[in-house]
Amino acid sequence: MSKFFEAHKATLFQAVKTSKSRDYWSAYPEIASGKIYGETAKDDQAAEFEALLGNPFKLDQPTNGNWTGAETSPYGKKLGVTYEDASAEDIIAASKAAGKSWGSASVEERVGVALEMLERINKKSFLIANAVMHTSGQAFMMAFQAGGPHAQDRGLEAVAYAYDAMTQTPNEVTWTKPQGKHDPIVLDKKFRVVPRGVALVIGCATFPTWNSYPGMFASMVTGNAVIIKPHPMAILPMAISIKIGRDVLKEAGFDPNVLMLAADTVDDPKTKDFVISDDVNIIDFTGSNAFGQWVRDNAGNAQVYTEEAGVNAITIHSTDNLRGMASNIAFSLSLYSGQMCTTPQNIFIPRDGIQTNDGKKSFDDVADAIKISLDKLLGDPARAAAILGAVQNPATLERVEAAGKLGKVVRGSQAVDGMDGARSATPTVVAVDAKNEEAYMQERFGPISFLIACDDIEDAIARAAGSAKSHGAITAALYSTNEDVIDAATEAYAWGGAPLSINLTGNIYVNQSAAYSDFHVTGANPSGNASLTDGAYVANRFRIATVRRQASMA
Amino acid sequence: MSKFFEAHKATLFQAVKTSKSRDYWSAYPEIASGKIYGETAKDDQAAEFEALLGNPFKLDQPTNGNWTGAETSPYGKKLGVTYEDASAEDIIAASKAAGKSWGSASVEERVGVALEMLERINKKSFLIANAVMHTSGQAFMMAFQAGGPHAQDRGLEAVAYAYDAMTQTPNEVTWTKPQGKHDPIVLDKKFRVVPRGVALVIGCATFPTWNSYPGMFASMVTGNAVIIKPHPMAILPMAISIKIGRDVLKEAGFDPNVLMLAADTVDDPKTKDFVISDDVNIIDFTGSNAFGQWVRDNAGNAQVYTEEAGVNAITIHSTDNLRGMASNIAFSLSLYSGQMCTTPQNIFIPRDGIQTNDGKKSFDDVADAIKISLDKLLGDPARAAAILGAVQNPATLERVEAAGKLGKVVRGSQAVDGMDGARSATPTVVAVDAKNEEAYMQERFGPISFLIACDDIEDAIARAAGSAKSHGAITAALYSTNEDVIDAATEAYAWGGAPLSINLTGNIYVNQSAAYSDFHVTGANPSGNASLTDGAYVANRFRIATVRRQASMA
Repeated sequence: MSKFFEAHKATLFQAVKTSKSRDYWSAYPEIASGKIYGETAKDDQAAEFEALLGNPFKLDQPTNGNWTGAETSPYGKKLGVTYEDASAEDIIAASKAAGKSWGSASVEERVGVALEMLERINKKSFLIANAVMHTSGQAFMMAFQAGGPHAQDRGLEAVAYAYDAMTQTPNEVTWTKPQGKHDPIVLDKKFRVVPRGVALVIGCATFPTWNSYPGMFASMVTGNAVIIKPHPMAILPMAISIKIGRDVLKEAGFDPNVLMLAADTVDDPKTKDFVISDDVNIIDFTGSNAFGQWVRDNAGNAQVYTEEAGVNAITIHSTDNLRGMASNIAFSLSLYSGQMCTTPQNIFIPRDGIQTNDGKKSFDDVADAIKISLDKLLGDPARAAAILGAVQNPATLERVEAAGKLGKVVRGSQAVDGMDGARSATPTVVAVDAKNEEAYMQERFGPISFLIACDDIEDAIARAAGSAKSHGAITAALYSTNEDVIDAATEAYAWGGAPLSINLTGNIYVNQSAAYSDFHVTGANPSGNASLTDGAYVANRFRIATVRRQASMA
Repeated sequence: MSKFFEAHKATLFQAVKTSKSRDYWSAYPEIASGKIYGETAKDDQAAEFEALLGNPFKLDQPTNGNWTGAETSPYGKKLGVTYEDASAEDIIAASKAAGKSWGSASVEERVGVALEMLERINKKSFLIANAVMHTSGQAFMMAFQAGGPHAQDRGLEAVAYAYDAMTQTPNEVTWTKPQGKHDPIVLDKKFRVVPRGVALVIGCATFPTWNSYPGMFASMVTGNAVIIKPHPMAILPMAISIKIGRDVLKEAGFDPNVLMLAADTVDDPKTKDFVISDDVNIIDFTGSNAFGQWVRDNAGNAQVYTEEAGVNAITIHSTDNLRGMASNIAFSLSLYSGQMCTTPQNIFIPRDGIQTNDGKKSFDDVADAIKISLDKLLGDPARAAAILGAVQNPATLERVEAAGKLGKVVRGSQAVDGMDGARSATPTVVAVDAKNEEAYMQERFGPISFLIACDDIEDAIARAAGSAKSHGAITAALYSTNEDVIDAATEAYAWGGAPLSINLTGNIYVNQSAAYSDFHVTGANPSGNASLTDGAYVANRFRIATVRRQASMA
């Protein structure tokens, strides 16, 4: 029995249990407190981060002797960290070789390694927060939570689902088939989990750990060797995670190449070399629909799990808390400058207005309420910076600029005072008519949203849920005090494939997706073919080998 | 709560339980006894079968007014049964329309319908046996067992796995996240299983029910409308099953088009029209590797589950029961004239012979023992007919004829005396050297097997397990009294992806695969990408829709 498994099994079993109850639970505290993480952890790990900058990050992987990587921070800092370079072919070969003994290890040994990795990664949450902040552009506190404990919980969730799936079949059974008056037929059978082979995880620049841990851990614990191919602008958070993982693997007696980094640059990308390899058997992809389609089309017989993109919608019918609604929406649009895959883009509103606790409000009144809430939320530059963070990709600023020409500007985007050297942009809000689908019926990634005037609530729901089905959506929200409207939207979104959040007015947002309780992406619309995390996400990462042996025979 | 679910839930729960214990159990008795099935059932249902011949088989499906179908029995009978004809487009449209309310039904309602279907199908096992016999060519008793109770058990197994997967997530939960001194955040969440859409099941001619029920039931109970596309030479067994299913659907208040037949003929095949449709979201395929590859390449974003083909091997190292081994192998080669996807084709033997309870035996001695066992087993024509059945496809006879030229004929194939009008062929056994891969390293479907002289046992195991990985294999067998050899073969086959049966000498055969205990096809080699039945076979046939609603908020 693995000592790591023994040490962490209570955490694992609680995760399995919670994934079935779907109540709130977390293994890794989201509060960045010295009391929890150690009083000097924040400063120590900030110093540790600074010490990495400008230096090679050594993983002791097979290398061609070159160093690669060209990350720059959206806050203006050049990171200057470099990584061992190697061809896809050489990395895959090392991965295959390492996978043999890993795939023969017991479920408990592999799961133990994963749990110990998560524990050590958790202890480095401040270090990883700095790395996530200066690659994704997330503000520090969000980088800590989303890049640290929340990502770790999503990793543990994947381990829990995989463990549960692998342990549905016993290791052995004596199979006894009665033969009437004769002696029974008896076979001794043994069952063993076998991996598919080499797994690839293709990460994104906005959530480098949160979107990579689930696939990484799900593939690892099911016995596959894993190659991490991070986005070239967000390598460091996964490099730190991989280094921790390789240390644990070595301590447990495995070849550290069970977990490898494949670093590259925007100018010399390597992802396609991995995807087309016949020796890559599982691919987890987070990224655009266009590249997602390419991956799906070119992966051969590899099992592909994707999170792509979509157009998330809010539908407003009525509310008993106009101010709460407007400020909730304003926060959702602002958080990380609208760069979450869960950020709402399209807000569908009947053109003749809505009923509220403050009487009937026109379309323009609702637009005003949202604008005022945004202005208030972001009025203080320090607070604005802490919510918005920085803009990861320069192309996003161009999209924000262009969005102003697509309709009537309700609120223009601005840079944030005091964020010198950083790319920053407050949300722009544009009013359009529902007929103007050219404007809003595509993802316009970043702090860009549309207030869309619809004929009535039926039209609004049909457009919102319909766009989820046709163009993908990862989240959806509804405001209504009318149960018939809620039922209609519930039904429409069951088929639209986006989870629906209803009447959020407090300190909880449509963007948020909680491990063990919320399924992130449904797999039921073009925003992705997989869900974090359900049974389908883990079940096909392994197969079962059987040996049956005649025990006794009449 | 569904009355059908209530009526059959004990059976369901036992199936779920057995799928996890993997001991022997069956819901549907395999003994064709009047005491179990009713004293007149056999004769009554034989008459029922005869009455179907030469007539249109009405399912009341949408139709273009034409009748299609041109089945002939391998026993020589022209069946003359015809089926409603319709275009793929029209069938898919009716399926989509029917799927809406079916997809909205509860898990219990849908599972109840499936369990009632299975119960009624079981009661018609003699009718279905006649239909399976006169399409596949199986002998009557095998057609009864494999086409009846064993197929029904595989159907129930798929229902059990799907039920278990769908019920892992609760229907609702109150999610309560503590906020320190403040009131907690509380969300009411509801989870609902939603289907992928329209599912297609492409059947084969040799096991028209056994290979179609799992996909049919797995897709149905997960909420998908299902179109059955049987092999054009084996429509009737599924038409009977579908008719029963449509009756149950109607009684339960559903549109019977939830389950539809798509019949065609060899001369005017329709399968591809269904596969390429964007409205088909799940495909279960049983058939050749070549067409399987085409289906996988042309299914678009549909989820595809395949059982294709391979070259099954027996490796012989040593035995303490030479006669038992030879007669066990002889039966495996003979059953249904080698037309099972589980029939061994290649028998790897060290060229300098094996150790036995009767001393050292040469390669030729072993060949002789198998030949003698075959001659003995098939010496009596009536018994031969009952084991061999008829040859489904005329092309198989040509392959048998050609096989004689591939090496040294140990035993020639012959027609069976008295099977007038039927296509029959006893097994041909050909000895070749391991170097002659051209002869044996491809599927030669039918009663054709090779005795392959290898350098030694290591060479034999490497070739046997290696061919499973490279060319696919659904079964594998080993005879050895040496635990080191058993361990080596066990390890080799864990990676080769074929379940290994060791030292079978009694009344149990490598060809046999028992529901709830044996995983049929592993998904780990080219003989198929799915397994009957594991979690992966059901998990991705549905998705989960979530609604979360603010309950109270600080």
